Amino acid sequence: MTLHHTLQATDGRARAGTLHTAHGEVPTPVFMPVGTAGTVKAMTADAVRATGARMILGNTYHLMLRPGAERVGRLGGLHRMVDWDGPILTDSGGFQVMSLAKLRKMDRDGVTFRSHVDGSKHRLTPERSIEIQHLLDADVTMCLDECIPFPATEEEAARAMRMSMLWAARCREAFVPREGYGLFGIVQGGVFPELRAESVRALTEIGFEGYAVGGLAVGEGQEIMFQTLDITTPLLPADKAHYLMGVGTPSDLIGGVRRGIDMFDCVMPTRSGRTARAYTSRGVMNMRNARFADDATTLDPECNCPACTRHTRAYLHHLFRAEEMLGPMLLTWHNIRYYQRLMERLRAAILAGRFEDEAARIEAGWEAGAAEAAALKTVVPGAAAALAGGATPLPGNAAAPLAAGDADPTSGVVAADTVPFPVPAGNEAPESNA
Amino acid sequence: MTLHHTLQATDGRARAGTLHTAHGEVPTPVFMPVGTAGTVKAMTADAVRATGARMILGNTYHLMLRPGAERVGRLGGLHRMVDWDGPILTDSGGFQVMSLAKLRKMDRDGVTFRSHVDGSKHRLTPERSIEIQHLLDADVTMCLDECIPFPATEEEAARAMRMSMLWAARCREAFVPREGYGLFGIVQGGVFPELRAESVRALTEIGFEGYAVGGLAVGEGQEIMFQTLDITTPLLPADKAHYLMGVGTPSDLIGGVRRGIDMFDCVMPTRSGRTARAYTSRGVMNMRNARFADDATTLDPECNCPACTRHTRAYLHHLFRAEEMLGPMLLTWHNIRYYQRLMERLRAAILAGRFEDEAARIEAGWEAGAAEAAALKTVVPGAAAALAGGATPLPGNAAAPLAAGDADPTSGVVAADTVPFPVPAGNEAPESNA
Repeated sequence: MTLHHTLQATDGRARAGTLHTAHGEVPTPVFMPVGTAGTVKAMTADAVRATGARMILGNTYHLMLRPGAERVGRLGGLHRMVDWDGPILTDSGGFQVMSLAKLRKMDRDGVTFRSHVDGSKHRLTPERSIEIQHLLDADVTMCLDECIPFPATEEEAARAMRMSMLWAARCREAFVPREGYGLFGIVQGGVFPELRAESVRALTEIGFEGYAVGGLAVGEGQEIMFQTLDITTPLLPADKAHYLMGVGTPSDLIGGVRRGIDMFDCVMPTRSGRTARAYTSRGVMNMRNARFADDATTLDPECNCPACTRHTRAYLHHLFRAEEMLGPMLLTWHNIRYYQRLMERLRAAILAGRFEDEAARIEAGWEAGAAEAAALKTVVPGAAAALAGGATPLPGNAAAPLAAGDADPTSGVVAADTVPFPVPAGNEAPESNA
Repeated sequence: MTLHHTLQATDGRARAGTLHTAHGEVPTPVFMPVGTAGTVKAMTADAVRATGARMILGNTYHLMLRPGAERVGRLGGLHRMVDWDGPILTDSGGFQVMSLAKLRKMDRDGVTFRSHVDGSKHRLTPERSIEIQHLLDADVTMCLDECIPFPATEEEAARAMRMSMLWAARCREAFVPREGYGLFGIVQGGVFPELRAESVRALTEIGFEGYAVGGLAVGEGQEIMFQTLDITTPLLPADKAHYLMGVGTPSDLIGGVRRGIDMFDCVMPTRSGRTARAYTSRGVMNMRNARFADDATTLDPECNCPACTRHTRAYLHHLFRAEEMLGPMLLTWHNIRYYQRLMERLRAAILAGRFEDEAARIEAGWEAGAAEAAALKTVVPGAAAALAGGATPLPGNAAAPLAAGDADPTSGVVAADTVPFPVPAGNEAPESNA
C-alpha cells in the first residue's frame, strides 16, 4: 500500500489522524523540523528524536547542490546519511530556486539556474525533481511547482497555477510507486478563491497521496492566509493528508489545525533558536535581553527539554552573550520541543473533543506573559529599554516573517540586543520557508 | 578529608590512581575537556558525560569577565550553572591574562588588566583568584602564578618563579579548606633544572593537595617538554596528583603518562573538532579533504561515538563543506571520546603492567595510517594535492601548537582545504592552553 492517512477524530474542522509511511507511523497534526542540507541545524539526530519529532523535512535544492543527489543515493539515501529512521518529506526544490538561486530562467519545461554556492549551472524539471527525491529516498515527494511572489495579479497567479498543474501531471507520471511512499500535489492560485478551486479540481483529477496548500506565508499576512485556508481545505479530499507548507508561528499552527491542516513545516523554531528567541508557554522571549542576566528561573516551567530542566535563563543568556555554540544548540532543542508539545496538546484535545478550549488555554498563556512583561515596564519605567524584548504574544508569521523582533511593536522601544531574523547575505544560504 | 589522590598501580613511572573529590572519584590518568566560558564548546553536558569524561576544566579569566564570578556564585556555582555534577578544576586566570588581556600591568601584589571583551578594568591578586575559584565552586583550585613567554633567560625565569612561589604561599593562606576540595601548587622555572627543583622545594614546603607542572607547551617542543618532565616529576610527592597543564596531543599524553603525570587538559580535541581535524586510531584526518567526499566508511572503526557509529566520513565531510554546526558538534564529540579512550587504554595497561606494549600498539596504528596515506599518494600521484591532509602521525603539540596542519610536512604539498589552527583575532577569545 502506498503512503496514506487515516483519521481518528475530528473536532469542528480540526483533525487527529495518522500518517502511514515506509518509515513508520506519524500522529497528526504533525510539525516537521526542517533539515535543510541533511541536518536539522544545531541538532544531532538523537536530539531531534528526543524532542518527540517523528518526521523531518529535507530540501531538494540544497541537497542537489551539496552533497549532490546521486551522492546521497550512493550513500544509501537521506535516512541513512543523516541517521533518521523515521519518515522524511522533501520539497521539490522549486521554492528555493526562486528565492536563492542566481540567474534563473524559467520555461514551460522547467527552470535553469546557477547555484548560490559555487555558481555552477543546474536544471530542474518535474521529472528531475522527482528523480532527485527518489534518490534522496523521501517518504513524501512533493510535486515541482512554480512559486510566484506576493502580491501577484490574478492573471499571473492563474498562469503559474496552470503551468504547475501541467507539471503536477508530469510529476505523477514520473513518480515510481513504492510501498509506504507517496507523492503530494500542491494547490496554488494565490489569494484568488476561483483559482484555488480550479487547482484543487486539477489535482484531485490526477490523484495524489496527499495535498499541500502552497504559496502562503509569503508576506500576505495571517488573516489572508487563514481566509485562503477557509476556502481551500474544505475542497481537499477528506481521506488524504493536508499539508500547509512553510508555516509558521505557534499561532499560525493553531489556526491551521483549526482549518483542517494535518502537516506543517517551518524554519521558525530552528532559526529563532539560533538567534536567541525562545517560544514559551508565556510567549516569545529574547534570551540576549539584559533582564535575564541574573534570572535563575526556568525558561519555561511547562517544558521538559534540557534547556528547561537543567539550566537557568541566566545561563542561556550568558551562552548567547558569549557567542557559545551551546546557546543555539539548547534553544533550538527547546523550540522544537515547544512545537512538538503544541502539536501533542492539540492532537489530544481533538481526540477529547475540546480543541477550542485547549487553543484558548494556550493563547491565554501567551496573553498572560505579555501582560506580565508590560507590567514590568510600567513598574520600572526607567528600565524599559532593558525590558523590551521580554515576553510578548506570538505574532503571525505570515505578517512579517523576516522582520519580527520580539519587542512590543506598540511601545516604540526596541532593545539594543533584540536580534531580528537575519537577512541572507552573500554565500550564506538561509533555510527555506517550504 | 580534603581532595586527595590514591595509587592503584605503577608501571615504570606511569601511574594508575584515583582522584577523590567532593563531586566524585576520577580514575587517573585523566584528560579533562576544557569548558572555557562555562561550556565545553559545541557539546551539551550530557554529550560530555557520554564521552566518558569525568572531570572538566573551567577558565577563571573568561568566567570572571563573563558572566562574572559573583554571578556564577549567585547561580549556585559552576557545577549547577553548567549542569556538571562531576568534579571541576579551574585555572587561576594568570595564563590568560598574559595571553588575552589588554594593557597588563604586573606588580608584586598582582596584575591589573583590561578585558578583551569590553575593555573594562580588572585586577587579579593571589587572594582574588582564590576567591573567584571559591565562588565558581571548583573542586581543584589552582594557585595564581606568573607565566613567562618562551624562550626566557634563566634570570627572568628565576625572578618569575620566585614571585610565583611567594604568591603560592598567599594562595595557600587564602584558600578555604573544605571536604573534598583542594588547592594545587604550580611548578615553574622554565627549562632550567635547578629552578624547577627550587620551585618543587618551595611548593612542598608550603604543602598542597596536588602539584602541577606549568610553563610547558608554550613553544619549546615535545623533546624539551619531556626533558623538563624527566627532571621534575621524580621530585614531586608520589602520594599527590601530578598535573601537566595545557597538554596536549595524543603523543604528548602518552609521553606525559610515561613520565608520571596523572592529569591533563587541552583545547586540542575541542578546537580541532571545530576545524574538521579528527584524531583517530590511524592518525589525524582533515574531514574537509576532498578524498572523503564519497567515503562511505566509518571515521574510526575503533570508536563508539555517534560520529563513528551513525555516520560516514562522507557525511562529516559534507557537514564541514556546508558549514553546518553539526560538523563541529560531531567531531568535537568524537575527539573528546578519542582522548577518553586513550586514557582508558593507558590506565588499563598500567594496571596490567603492560603500559609500554599498549603505547607501542597505539603508536603503531598512527604509523600504519600515515603509511596508508603515503601509499595512496604514490599510487595516484596526480591526486597528491587532494590527498594531502589525510591520515598522518600525530605531531607533538608543544612543537608548534598553532601551526600544525595535517598535511605531511615533508611532502611540500599542503591541501587547499587544510585548516590550520585559527589564530586569535579581534574580540574572539581563543580557549586557553591551560
